[in-house]
Amino acid sequence: MPQNLISKDVADIESILALNPKIKPFASLVPSAETKKNKAHWKRNADKKCSSCGPLYNNFDDVKHTTLSERGALKEAGRCLKCADAPCQKSCPTQLDIKSFISCISTKNYYGAAKMIFSDNPLGITCGMVCPTSDLCVGSCNLYASEEGPINIGGLQQFATEIFMKMQIPQILPPDTPSELPASYSSKVALIGCGPASISCATFLARLGYKDLVIFEKEDYIGGLSSSEIPQYRLPIEVVHFEIDLMKNLGVRIETGRKLSTSDVTLQGLKQDGYAAIFVGIGLPNPKRVWPFENLTEDQGFFTSKDFLPKVAVASKQGMCSCSAKSLPKLSGNVIVLGAGDTAFDCATSALRCGASRVFVIFRKGFTNIRAVPEEMELAREEKCEFLPFLSPKEVFTKEGKISAMEFYRNEQDENGEWIEDQEQTIRLKAGTIICAFGSGLSDESVKAALEPLKFNKYGIPEVNVKTMETSESGIFIGGDIAGISESTVEAVNDGKNAAWSIHKYLQALHNLEVSPVPQLPKFHTPIDLVDISIDMCGMKFPNPFGLASAPPCTTSAMIRRGFEQGWGFVVTKTFSLDKDLVTNVSPRIVRGTTSGFNYGPGQGAFLNIELISEKTAAYWCKSVTELKADFPEKIVIASIMCSYNSNDWTQLAKQAEASGADALELNLSCPHGMGERGMGLACGQDPELVRNICRWVRAAIKIPFFAKLTPNVTNIVDIAQAAYEGKADGVTATNTVSGLMGLRSDGTPWPSVGAEKRTTYGGVAGNAIRPIALKAVSAIAKAIPGFPIMATGGIDSAETALQFLHCGASVVQICSAVQNQDFTVIEDYTTGLQALLYLESLGLKGWDGQSPPTARHQKGKLITAQSVVGKHLPSFGPYKKEREQILAAEKKRVTLESIEQDWNNQREVNQPQGQVPRLTDLVGRSVRYITPYGELDQKQQVVALIDEEMCINCGKCYMTCNDSGYQAITFDPETHLTHVSDDCTGCTLCVSVCPIIDCITMVPRTIPYIPKRGIPVGLSV
Amino acid sequence: MPQNLISKDVADIESILALNPKIKPFASLVPSAETKKNKAHWKRNADKKCSSCGPLYNNFDDVKHTTLSERGALKEAGRCLKCADAPCQKSCPTQLDIKSFISCISTKNYYGAAKMIFSDNPLGITCGMVCPTSDLCVGSCNLYASEEGPINIGGLQQFATEIFMKMQIPQILPPDTPSELPASYSSKVALIGCGPASISCATFLARLGYKDLVIFEKEDYIGGLSSSEIPQYRLPIEVVHFEIDLMKNLGVRIETGRKLSTSDVTLQGLKQDGYAAIFVGIGLPNPKRVWPFENLTEDQGFFTSKDFLPKVAVASKQGMCSCSAKSLPKLSGNVIVLGAGDTAFDCATSALRCGASRVFVIFRKGFTNIRAVPEEMELAREEKCEFLPFLSPKEVFTKEGKISAMEFYRNEQDENGEWIEDQEQTIRLKAGTIICAFGSGLSDESVKAALEPLKFNKYGIPEVNVKTMETSESGIFIGGDIAGISESTVEAVNDGKNAAWSIHKYLQALHNLEVSPVPQLPKFHTPIDLVDISIDMCGMKFPNPFGLASAPPCTTSAMIRRGFEQGWGFVVTKTFSLDKDLVTNVSPRIVRGTTSGFNYGPGQGAFLNIELISEKTAAYWCKSVTELKADFPEKIVIASIMCSYNSNDWTQLAKQAEASGADALELNLSCPHGMGERGMGLACGQDPELVRNICRWVRAAIKIPFFAKLTPNVTNIVDIAQAAYEGKADGVTATNTVSGLMGLRSDGTPWPSVGAEKRTTYGGVAGNAIRPIALKAVSAIAKAIPGFPIMATGGIDSAETALQFLHCGASVVQICSAVQNQDFTVIEDYTTGLQALLYLESLGLKGWDGQSPPTARHQKGKLITAQSVVGKHLPSFGPYKKEREQILAAEKKRVTLESIEQDWNNQREVNQPQGQVPRLTDLVGRSVRYITPYGELDQKQQVVALIDEEMCINCGKCYMTCNDSGYQAITFDPETHLTHVSDDCTGCTLCVSVCPIIDCITMVPRTIPYIPKRGIPVGLSV
Repeated sequence: MPQNLISKDVADIESILALNPKIKPFASLVPSAETKKNKAHWKRNADKKCSSCGPLYNNFDDVKHTTLSERGALKEAGRCLKCADAPCQKSCPTQLDIKSFISCISTKNYYGAAKMIFSDNPLGITCGMVCPTSDLCVGSCNLYASEEGPINIGGLQQFATEIFMKMQIPQILPPDTPSELPASYSSKVALIGCGPASISCATFLARLGYKDLVIFEKEDYIGGLSSSEIPQYRLPIEVVHFEIDLMKNLGVRIETGRKLSTSDVTLQGLKQDGYAAIFVGIGLPNPKRVWPFENLTEDQGFFTSKDFLPKVAVASKQGMCSCSAKSLPKLSGNVIVLGAGDTAFDCATSALRCGASRVFVIFRKGFTNIRAVPEEMELAREEKCEFLPFLSPKEVFTKEGKISAMEFYRNEQDENGEWIEDQEQTIRLKAGTIICAFGSGLSDESVKAALEPLKFNKYGIPEVNVKTMETSESGIFIGGDIAGISESTVEAVNDGKNAAWSIHKYLQALHNLEVSPVPQLPKFHTPIDLVDISIDMCGMKFPNPFGLASAPPCTTSAMIRRGFEQGWGFVVTKTFSLDKDLVTNVSPRIVRGTTSGFNYGPGQGAFLNIELISEKTAAYWCKSVTELKADFPEKIVIASIMCSYNSNDWTQLAKQAEASGADALELNLSCPHGMGERGMGLACGQDPELVRNICRWVRAAIKIPFFAKLTPNVTNIVDIAQAAYEGKADGVTATNTVSGLMGLRSDGTPWPSVGAEKRTTYGGVAGNAIRPIALKAVSAIAKAIPGFPIMATGGIDSAETALQFLHCGASVVQICSAVQNQDFTVIEDYTTGLQALLYLESLGLKGWDGQSPPTARHQKGKLITAQSVVGKHLPSFGPYKKEREQILAAEKKRVTLESIEQDWNNQREVNQPQGQVPRLTDLVGRSVRYITPYGELDQKQQVVALIDEEMCINCGKCYMTCNDSGYQAITFDPETHLTHVSDDCTGCTLCVSVCPIIDCITMVPRTIPYIPKRGIPVGLSV
Repeated sequence: MPQNLISKDVADIESILALNPKIKPFASLVPSAETKKNKAHWKRNADKKCSSCGPLYNNFDDVKHTTLSERGALKEAGRCLKCADAPCQKSCPTQLDIKSFISCISTKNYYGAAKMIFSDNPLGITCGMVCPTSDLCVGSCNLYASEEGPINIGGLQQFATEIFMKMQIPQILPPDTPSELPASYSSKVALIGCGPASISCATFLARLGYKDLVIFEKEDYIGGLSSSEIPQYRLPIEVVHFEIDLMKNLGVRIETGRKLSTSDVTLQGLKQDGYAAIFVGIGLPNPKRVWPFENLTEDQGFFTSKDFLPKVAVASKQGMCSCSAKSLPKLSGNVIVLGAGDTAFDCATSALRCGASRVFVIFRKGFTNIRAVPEEMELAREEKCEFLPFLSPKEVFTKEGKISAMEFYRNEQDENGEWIEDQEQTIRLKAGTIICAFGSGLSDESVKAALEPLKFNKYGIPEVNVKTMETSESGIFIGGDIAGISESTVEAVNDGKNAAWSIHKYLQALHNLEVSPVPQLPKFHTPIDLVDISIDMCGMKFPNPFGLASAPPCTTSAMIRRGFEQGWGFVVTKTFSLDKDLVTNVSPRIVRGTTSGFNYGPGQGAFLNIELISEKTAAYWCKSVTELKADFPEKIVIASIMCSYNSNDWTQLAKQAEASGADALELNLSCPHGMGERGMGLACGQDPELVRNICRWVRAAIKIPFFAKLTPNVTNIVDIAQAAYEGKADGVTATNTVSGLMGLRSDGTPWPSVGAEKRTTYGGVAGNAIRPIALKAVSAIAKAIPGFPIMATGGIDSAETALQFLHCGASVVQICSAVQNQDFTVIEDYTTGLQALLYLESLGLKGWDGQSPPTARHQKGKLITAQSVVGKHLPSFGPYKKEREQILAAEKKRVTLESIEQDWNNQREVNQPQGQVPRLTDLVGRSVRYITPYGELDQKQQVVALIDEEMCINCGKCYMTCNDSGYQAITFDPETHLTHVSDDCTGCTLCVSVCPIIDCITMVPRTIPYIPKRGIPVGLSV
């Protein structure tokens, strides 16, 4: 009676299992005709043939390909190689330290990343969103040389800075700004035009200490092209206002409605008004209008991009200006856009949102001559705009006062590459609207007159020194489009930055003050940078809790010196011995881990080494310690020593090390390979008796503090720590590496293997793979011996992981693998990261985990803002995707977009610490109380899984793991591939553990009682 | 005197350090004008504006974007989600089990992947290279819903199958094919046209057992369109021949020069010749020629794609046919290509290689109506072909007998979407060559006559049942282009596959034999599938060494049943106890690891659990064991039991378990959480005395073998194993999980945390993170107690890692985390993978590591075949990249491409085992001899690093790690970013460990003596 088998799934579970993977005994067989139909159901990418994609009317939602969710950002940041002398940085006009800010993102130090970005580029979010990166940073990414392709640098930049924006923290003056500055810093400086160039220039001037900075803007809105021309779906107005607010945090003032014109602001007038320096960043205000467009009007259906885009902007960017209500331009039918720059493509995609049914983008030359970078054209291509190359304007036709069609000449390139307009060949295109994006210039005579006495060049723009941004007139500087070098926002920003330094030099010279010959533009600062992360331990004051462990990064003292120069708080020397115990290494000896899959390159999760202690003599190390303490008195130098189990040796070496001036000693009782055989290292550290005695000997020999470095390769590390405590050690280091064998080749030979014999020995596993072991060791010791100082080591690779160790009871942390993975500069990531964690804790932000904000509902990083589609069981593929689009389009159509009156001048809200920012000392050991015996865990408070359908990507990973490793408590719909958790869920949490989308599954309290399924009830015999 | 400081880098090292990362104190400042120049030096992507990219004349090197190196393949396979009910498979015409073959690649089981691919698609490499995947599998990839985008499925398919090709292993008949088949299997079957459809059909018929299969091919080359039309740079001829060879392995014969024609092969003739079934797969042989091209000739400069592409193929595909020498068509100047299908783009890019200076691709409709998928157009776009939409042919102009120009009408779509040819608007384009790619049809009357008596449909092709591929005539089947459904190679393959099953049904019916109502097309087999991976241990015969560990995948016995059904060799039940010890779990309790960075989704490198033993009763488990053994007598069922330290309990439970019919018992002496507090699990397993006694009690109670499951959380696991040995256990399981704390949130609360109090307890860390610990444990026990059976567990996630454990001394392996990460079907990957490893070992292939072939010099997966560029210190960016291209172009120009006479009929070489394929038993413990004390490693045999400039991607990771964690022994050129290893290299191997490119750095023997730098010499006081 097979139905009675208890080892067989019951019927209702069998239906759940229907879609669970099974090995198939035969080849599959489905006719091609059927698959043609089936694939439409599962299709996720765009139809290649649909002649117009989803209706876009009124839809100004984010369309950037580069926008990243936290998962996307972490994945992308993780694969960045963090190259030496990184070429991305060299190709960024503002010279952003890209590899370092990405490195910060990869450790969840989003503030650190944002700080680096804003330090070099005050418009860091804007540029992250709109930079033509393929022509800049991304174009030189070394990952172009790998199949995975270059890093999405813009997206990462946007991600980190947007999270900073969510933190709501203001910019402050650099902390080292003197409270009293010379009078030169009170010079009046005027900046004309509140666009990227001026914002950048004013920001840097303000950071330098200038107090009287004012920007004159002719419009009643601010931001320049960022506001007026770049569409909301590429650059939201909130971002523009946020970055201007950061500038205003430093005291820069803005006056709107102030135009550069003979009737208002003029250079000469400003000079008369006492402005000591002037920066002109007005862009190129006048659209180029060529024949046959000269006399066409908007009523007829003609726009220049400079007319069209601001009209779209004002209506679609809520709160952009405090102007009266304006609505979107109404377009319909065919629209012709002329031009091949990024503005042309912005016009094309904006036209679709204003009602155009079809858009033709027309350009004079071929595809190979398009000025815009591919990513700028891409969106228009995706939104099914059509492109017509090799055409130049001939004539516009009107009918009843409206544009009805346009004619073009054909352009050709002759054999010499010269372009010829063939007047005999013409093409006519029906269209009711023409938008002309032929760029702009400076033709307004009133503006030109207001710029007197500047000299102009042959292009009709002011002469400029391209290195200093000085004009022909002393004290007048320019930047951005009007300066003629910049072709993008980021270059305008850089013009402003360069001009700021020139203005600084100029103003100081006016007051006969010198400035550094090397530019010293201050970096970006916030209250986070004021957070104190020093900590006291055993009477030593550590400037920060991050030290270099006794390991390869301390191979020489010159390396330690360089580590100190980069900012490391302390260092433990590589372990040295008495001369009689000197070692010589074998090679190879440090190999990559195999614990994180086949990972080649950055972020090795583990290393294994069979390296011994230092090959250098005690004399070398003691002299080094003396030198280092002399040059870095505020840093902590800890000498690591090792002897065999012998009172004399330990006494001698400890005294010698103390005499060198070391702040403290670390006794290496834990090296897991090589030394043990000599009766050293772990051979001593695995026996409490030996540890206790060695500590006693050393205690007797020296006055300075010392720490026993413990091995995790023991049954109970607390026993060993207890022995050290009893031996009067001042503390312990937990833990050294875990003894292991990393791997074998398929022929059975090991790696590393030494010599022709291919021998190996068990080595020390280090890095993230051993962090769970080290966290346990630290917290267990902290719990057992309260107040006993601990230096933690083992998988610390970020501020976040360092804080975990502090929470577990360590006071400071030692690092090696993370430096092996990168270089000494990671210290900057760790210090800013830790400052940010402390500051954010003081803000008490709701739902944040450290620097990670709560996960908003999204698909592919794009927020799901439309409530109309939520809860409709619609995944994002095939017919369901179309349905989503239709619902969304209907919602968009219902709303009439109109500008709303709102004062951009309102300062944004700023978060303030609730009470004191915590000090590190206060956090040490705070998690120990959560760690209890199993028996103290509450079996009554159970949880179950909850899946968010809107974030679900329908992979069914939760379903499979629940089936084959759990409770068959998740259903998987055969049509929608949506999952649902049943009452059989026992809260095991495997589904969360394998789900690829952060927070798509959450564990929520169980509302019904949990009754375990015992299979056959207790006491029932069978 | 700072120059005397030993803690300061000496001058020559300072110069090495010049490019090492440093924290910058200020914002950077470089004028935009300078960066404009600098970025050109570092540029890696194509110039957006260059009007023609690098010269392509004669260059038929691989251009596929999808080609992957091993690193690229492993990365890509690793990020595949391996979805449930994977939509990629549903969108593949041949229904390839894509997620499973990618899963195999991700574990380096390339044979397993290739086997799955060829099982469903005998043209697996071809389709991997040429499939329009965005319209098929890739189009439905769930990763479209994430920012990282869909998986490069084609590239992975190509990668795995190409590695299989390198293995040089033949196809064999399915092992279960009866040696004597009914006469029906000797039926004569003819297939006409040796293209994809026929090759597929013949392969499946051969696999079914048909012996008399012959393909008639009209050309003197084989492969159909794959050979004649798809260019070498997209599909090399070697691949076409390889796949046909696989078919020929099964006995299929080919006759070339045999045309479907009234003068040669006709359907009726074949029937008369005794062919019982016929498959027609001749494609559509006749190019469509429309006005105004009817009378144009090649001499004038006119080609159809069907004329042009075969001419290019014959000259550029060495050994394609045994025909007389033919050279490339010579083109120059402007070339016009007409059409918007993939063939048009192949013509365009081929034309560039034949000498065209500029190519215009012209199509009737807009970009939104292009028939080809984007990836097919992409190459032409990159190679700077120009596109002209909305044009249809009007007239061709000639001058002195040569084409000189062409005129087009403009096409327009009216408001109803109808296309109108506007005869008043014309465009003229100068060009000397016109290639027309308007598709093809069946117009040859002789062919049509040869097809009699087939009925034709309104499109002029034979009528067909699209489900069975039957024609109007019984016994005649068709597929591929001529059948009218297929639009791609893969659909043609699927037509052949479907036809094969129909032919099978038809032929068997002719002999009055029945076939299965469910199609049973055999999978792909090779000698690898015959390899025996069973192993004996303690008198038990394990069908394979892969078992489910006592863990969540064994939560119920119904799950075990499903595991057995999928192929698992053995199982250890979840641990059960006496009723008095029954447990209830808390939740959450199984969380993702934090040891591999921020990894969400597939391939979790670790899990931590605080799950207890089974919640089910011993009665349930004992009844389950009885049932399972009854239904799966050949599988091994091991019952896992746990008691507290109490003779009576252990005796009672062991007897009960033995009575259930279990093959063996596993004593859980190692559960690291929860149970210990009750005096169970690890509380027993950490004390040799307790272990010894428990084993003695159990030994006394039962006759069947039993194993002590050991905990790694001890100072020396060998001591515990020794105790078990002394207690007469039959073996041990090494190891259980490692006790640890996985992580804390930033506020100090742990994860997992139970209840409102947020309590946690130390849990068990499992998965790859603990593999080094487990490998050490297994090998140490094997070394200490030779011959003592070991079941290994701890991070086994592939055949390769399983083999490592066997090499270390285990006989079988237990798996949990890998199933949690995926599902039970991974067993197929492990078994085929292990078979392949054993078979490959027997082949003795040089330089292979398991299934990984030696890394050939490559960039981005593309082989560097041109020796002319090697060793010139030219990286692949900026000016150096251009120089490389020029050198290469010059080399290509020198050579005249010509077809060479070569007999495609030569069977390719096949590798044969050298002696016996090893048995698993022979491999157990073979690596133990390599593992020695440190003192036995040879300090004299040192190695140093060697960097391959050609593979280097200039990231400088080796340079940074050597600077900050080593010996400052690598230089980094400031201009070329090439690295060089100096004599200061000590062979530490960190550079290899962090290098992102596999085998770009290798360790080679040191040729000069190694003298450690002691800093201050021994004995020298200071």
